[in-house]
Amino acid sequence: MIHQKIKEAIQTYSEELTELRRKLHSEPEVSWEEENTTAFICEYLENLGIPYRRTNPTGVIANVAGAKVGKTVALRADIDALPVEELNKDLPYASKEDGKMHACGHDAHTAMLLIAAKALNESKEELPGTVRLIFQPAEEAATGAREMVKQGAMEGVDNVFGIHIWSQMPTHKVSCTPGPSFASADIVKVTFKGKGGHGAMPHDCIDAAIVASSFVMNVQTVVSRTIDPQRPAVLTIGKMDVGTRFNVIAENAVIEGTVRCFDNETRAHIEKQIEQYAENVANIYGASAEVEYIRGTQPVINDEYSAKFVQQVASGAFGEDVLYTEKPTMGGEDFSFYLDEAPGSFALVGSGNPEKDTEWAHHHGKFNIDEDALATGAELYAQYAWAYLNE
Amino acid sequence: MIHQKIKEAIQTYSEELTELRRKLHSEPEVSWEEENTTAFICEYLENLGIPYRRTNPTGVIANVAGAKVGKTVALRADIDALPVEELNKDLPYASKEDGKMHACGHDAHTAMLLIAAKALNESKEELPGTVRLIFQPAEEAATGAREMVKQGAMEGVDNVFGIHIWSQMPTHKVSCTPGPSFASADIVKVTFKGKGGHGAMPHDCIDAAIVASSFVMNVQTVVSRTIDPQRPAVLTIGKMDVGTRFNVIAENAVIEGTVRCFDNETRAHIEKQIEQYAENVANIYGASAEVEYIRGTQPVINDEYSAKFVQQVASGAFGEDVLYTEKPTMGGEDFSFYLDEAPGSFALVGSGNPEKDTEWAHHHGKFNIDEDALATGAELYAQYAWAYLNE
Amino acid sequence: MIHQKIKEAIQTYSEELTELRRKLHSEPEVSWEEENTTAFICEYLENLGIPYRRTNPTGVIANVAGAKVGKTVALRADIDALPVEELNKDLPYASKEDGKMHACGHDAHTAMLLIAAKALNESKEELPGTVRLIFQPAEEAATGAREMVKQGAMEGVDNVFGIHIWSQMPTHKVSCTPGPSFASADIVKVTFKGKGGHGAMPHDCIDAAIVASSFVMNVQTVVSRTIDPQRPAVLTIGKMDVGTRFNVIAENAVIEGTVRCFDNETRAHIEKQIEQYAENVANIYGASAEVEYIRGTQPVINDEYSAKFVQQVASGAFGEDVLYTEKPTMGGEDFSFYLDEAPGSFALVGSGNPEKDTEWAHHHGKFNIDEDALATGAELYAQYAWAYLNE
Amino acid sequence: MIHQKIKEAIQTYSEELTELRRKLHSEPEVSWEEENTTAFICEYLENLGIPYRRTNPTGVIANVAGAKVGKTVALRADIDALPVEELNKDLPYASKEDGKMHACGHDAHTAMLLIAAKALNESKEELPGTVRLIFQPAEEAATGAREMVKQGAMEGVDNVFGIHIWSQMPTHKVSCTPGPSFASADIVKVTFKGKGGHGAMPHDCIDAAIVASSFVMNVQTVVSRTIDPQRPAVLTIGKMDVGTRFNVIAENAVIEGTVRCFDNETRAHIEKQIEQYAENVANIYGASAEVEYIRGTQPVINDEYSAKFVQQVASGAFGEDVLYTEKPTMGGEDFSFYLDEAPGSFALVGSGNPEKDTEWAHHHGKFNIDEDALATGAELYAQYAWAYLNE
Repeated sequence: MIHQKIKEAIQTYSEELTELRRKLHSEPEVSWEEENTTAFICEYLENLGIPYRRTNPTGVIANVAGAKVGKTVALRADIDALPVEELNKDLPYASKEDGKMHACGHDAHTAMLLIAAKALNESKEELPGTVRLIFQPAEEAATGAREMVKQGAMEGVDNVFGIHIWSQMPTHKVSCTPGPSFASADIVKVTFKGKGGHGAMPHDCIDAAIVASSFVMNVQTVVSRTIDPQRPAVLTIGKMDVGTRFNVIAENAVIEGTVRCFDNETRAHIEKQIEQYAENVANIYGASAEVEYIRGTQPVINDEYSAKFVQQVASGAFGEDVLYTEKPTMGGEDFSFYLDEAPGSFALVGSGNPEKDTEWAHHHGKFNIDEDALATGAELYAQYAWAYLNE
Repeated sequence: MIHQKIKEAIQTYSEELTELRRKLHSEPEVSWEEENTTAFICEYLENLGIPYRRTNPTGVIANVAGAKVGKTVALRADIDALPVEELNKDLPYASKEDGKMHACGHDAHTAMLLIAAKALNESKEELPGTVRLIFQPAEEAATGAREMVKQGAMEGVDNVFGIHIWSQMPTHKVSCTPGPSFASADIVKVTFKGKGGHGAMPHDCIDAAIVASSFVMNVQTVVSRTIDPQRPAVLTIGKMDVGTRFNVIAENAVIEGTVRCFDNETRAHIEKQIEQYAENVANIYGASAEVEYIRGTQPVINDEYSAKFVQQVASGAFGEDVLYTEKPTMGGEDFSFYLDEAPGSFALVGSGNPEKDTEWAHHHGKFNIDEDALATGAELYAQYAWAYLNE
Repeated sequence: MIHQKIKEAIQTYSEELTELRRKLHSEPEVSWEEENTTAFICEYLENLGIPYRRTNPTGVIANVAGAKVGKTVALRADIDALPVEELNKDLPYASKEDGKMHACGHDAHTAMLLIAAKALNESKEELPGTVRLIFQPAEEAATGAREMVKQGAMEGVDNVFGIHIWSQMPTHKVSCTPGPSFASADIVKVTFKGKGGHGAMPHDCIDAAIVASSFVMNVQTVVSRTIDPQRPAVLTIGKMDVGTRFNVIAENAVIEGTVRCFDNETRAHIEKQIEQYAENVANIYGASAEVEYIRGTQPVINDEYSAKFVQQVASGAFGEDVLYTEKPTMGGEDFSFYLDEAPGSFALVGSGNPEKDTEWAHHHGKFNIDEDALATGAELYAQYAWAYLNE
Repeated sequence: MIHQKIKEAIQTYSEELTELRRKLHSEPEVSWEEENTTAFICEYLENLGIPYRRTNPTGVIANVAGAKVGKTVALRADIDALPVEELNKDLPYASKEDGKMHACGHDAHTAMLLIAAKALNESKEELPGTVRLIFQPAEEAATGAREMVKQGAMEGVDNVFGIHIWSQMPTHKVSCTPGPSFASADIVKVTFKGKGGHGAMPHDCIDAAIVASSFVMNVQTVVSRTIDPQRPAVLTIGKMDVGTRFNVIAENAVIEGTVRCFDNETRAHIEKQIEQYAENVANIYGASAEVEYIRGTQPVINDEYSAKFVQQVASGAFGEDVLYTEKPTMGGEDFSFYLDEAPGSFALVGSGNPEKDTEWAHHHGKFNIDEDALATGAELYAQYAWAYLNE
């Protein structure tokens, strides 16, 4: 099931793998702005002689076509960074872009898939089928996967496999369990409109700063009081943009957040509650509320066959000890859109190592990975493709 | 006491007065960015042959020197606009700058003082003393007057007089009463620092959006519960800037506001309370708070002699009916800095006219003035100077 | 204007005056439960031979009828205590009733009026008219004066005079100024109805504890944001009664408070806002709200003639130095109901003395009076009646 | 495994069973006040000739001693009612006590165990061991079981079994699964001390109504933001007692609530957070906070052997269809104290029937049971005891 030549290739290119990741890390581009990252991937594939297609506006689809006819397995890596300020200023490869950072590990995913492609490409004479490479933009915006599917990423694909580096799991561990793996991830945007005016004359105004703050405090009770405590749910208000100036009473307040859960009944409940809370909080003050609730990714539900196959491949490649059972995460992943098109699964590859201070939460400015995880991920990509096509 | 020649000049230039105001209205520049406005004032004075000095970086000081030796009286107009979006889009002279607007009437002040200067300049052979013209930047930032004083605006000045157009009073009315007229106006900035992270993992973070919202709700009680209800006070949070992205838990929240009252004991109390509230709200959540409290303008206290003299001049120029008693406003005015240097007073000139829809609150996007008020203001400036120097 | 015989009588009875006050202090009875207090007053008047009528259910009306025909002047004292726990446990005359206390000084008012009645009664041969004594129950409930008027207390009265002991003013001072003296005092009761249930199943319930708490926090903004800061207003929630048991989610919450201001426009605004806030806060949560807003006392407005007459009497009795100008208080007084029936005024008699620790706020458990104030009050009652009838 | 004679006895006494339950329902007594209920149980056992011991102050321990020597199995029923107002006013057996109600089904438990005792007693000649009957008071106060253990209820007991009627499960269903069944249930009491005073003078006071309300709103974030969403937790504030009177600013506020979760780490976290929130909310306002956190019941963890044995007994008595899998409940049960003394398990017996409107939540004023469930419960008690002793 395991291809020795692939294992050796990954070992051979391990330094390049690290360099690739560091280069990508230092030049982060946020969702739908991955111009240079896309260009770099294209150039790399070009040099390997792997045919590719650039998607619009960013992203790349490529095929490593085996010499023999067979099935098609897709491997997916996401390529975008976050609008987070990197706090690891001393790293030689720290972000060069103010306020942007690969704080979720997509730099690693991209590097891993490039090296996996290189290894697979070197074995393509023996390969019974096609490996579809999907370098997806805008995962953080939860809109990239849908767009890649629309632009043909999943055409002809029989099975799809994705990986996420995971700082909350130890390095050299792989988790891939049947069933729920990632939560649904929706976007909520509430705009309150009051009545602005002179900061010294509140009685002539409707203060949107009050409306927004009251909403944020009251809406905590959606989770604390209205949902069955045994159904996990998260409602995060990540951003508030209220008013324009210290001494002008705020006319407008814009609040943006994310909603996570594991079932669609809870999802619908939260959407409805947010509307009810926003409207009535606005009414207290004579303000108005507009709620935009954007259904983002579905929960990621690994199919049983694929998930167990990943476990077999991982055991084969790295030994039984590699297997780990991470509980589902409330994080969202637009990988779910690929699973609407074909069976497949999504694995976590541990990158947490207390000795290297790589256990910071994803999306935090101090996030970093234990680079020893890179080879595990790269090989898992490649071996899974090899095993699946040979099955 | 009233100079007939000045009255006639103002009437003669009344169309120009309106045009000047409209031109300034259409080209608003916010505090400390009044480059074009400053250049325009300089050019206008240049053409009149009035010697002037440009202050740094913006603003103008000029002298209309009478042929006879005498006292010096200063007339002050402020020239800056606000970062407010004009909502009077149909006006032919609406703001051409997105998000900037003369929503407080400083365009009128500037135009009025230019025409007053023109009228006084034509009478300078008869003038027994000097009229100091102060075109002050950055009143809205509450830092302009202080800077103008520092750059010499009040040197040698015996008395100072300022005017504010007032939409809450009817056109053709003037109010100038001894005692408190405008409130103190301080700036408060609170920065909360939590711990950012993935939007789906609140338990690993300290959510600055919660801390900020809780602070805004709790701090309402400073006014509602901790201050003698018979001591007027306002605490407005005009701006909240929280977090960076909908799905990243906010690490930082910045809140900016203004504090108004009429006595320094209340002022000190509010400052202390804000610190106490911010620190302890942060402590609830394990966050930290930094409070910056910037003492802005003192209350404007008209001296008795000057205020009554303004009433006499106004009655003389426009008849007894012009007099009006407006209660003190919670608005702040950095005119108070001139009053630290010389006695003087500050008058309100009505511009509210329901038939012309000019009763919107100052700083609102629909604010506008009844342009009939312009001549009242321009003549009051000039006649006051004339009367004071001839006294 | 001043009757020497009255002055001497008050001095003669000063020990009795103190004893009367202490006895009343030790046996406090709350609004509409003043059974023993009423009986005691009746007995005292009986012993003096002053005809009286007991009102229903509590309270006393009496007449000291002079030998000569003349006007009628009413003197009013209120007799009820508060449901406050006395904290001055060491006083020999501390309250004997748990949770009840004369924390507002009505014990003093009653004692002062009894001794004034005794003094006046001894001069009745010389008295040209009638002194009506009103011992009013339930001032703290703001319903006593209305009831006394209904039961005939003001019939035939030409002028009415009342006194309040005032811990915020020094002993030996009297304040009685024309115009507003006490604020309007309304009662507000909000009942929220949610859906109760098992404390571990919030998602099946509507939690009235949340609704009530959210209301209390949001309603702070009525004062802090919706009322002209130059119009004094107070909204106090004094009592919250929420739920029945720690582990049963609260179905009901009852909130009671008081509203104070000096003008009826603000009063109507606050009433409307409370309704708007209560209804919409309830709607956030799917609960219901019922608001009961009970108009209590009007503001107390002293008529100019009466107030100045009090000042003359006080100066005559105690010297010019006795006069003091206390600003209006946000406290309410149902004395305003008597002023609807006849002209009159209401005076404050200082009882604050830092050396005797008698400057605690009215209604606080440590409230006490400097007993030197008693003679001032008793004499002012009696001399005012004498002077008014002799005028 | 099933004793036919017991089955027949239960059928024979089914009308009496219903009558017993109704009698108990109509005469509810709350925790530690179960005087009449205790007396009634004693009398009933007396009449059966079953030796019993009354515990102090309420509760009963009895033994049905079999003719043969053997093990001892305990059956537990709780007997107390709740301070809830019954809303089923039309029931012929509705509560006769205002504000008290068997809203949790303990009336059923008691009746079921009495009839089970009667049935077992009739078979005692064949019984190889002893059935310990525990009629426990004060389950709702979470203090009864501990006290019963202290007074000897579990002495010599080899296995313990309890039943709860369950309105959220259909009638004729039984659920008893190994592992967590009920949550931990702790009691929290927070006392805030401000500074009371006159309702019109907030600036002289520290308003405990504000402190308490702010605490309730802020503390929602303990669940919504500080606990892993995949760890179920509930924090309910069931009762708030704030202030004494509408027009006296509240000096004290007492808040009582319950905390539920399934693991001790979360429990400790919540306790610590409540302390942190209470202290710092108080500090905002200059008030003080005292937190009393009383560890109540542990989670109920059914041991695997006992739970599966219950399933076998239930299947044997009622058929395979009776088995049901109810997820763990956040409700607490002090049955956990018995499990500290001996292995055992706790079963749910369904009583929900939409046609009889018996699906209202436990603790709600409309709670009622489908009385068809009574026989299921009574027989399960008796057959389990029989089976266990015969095993």
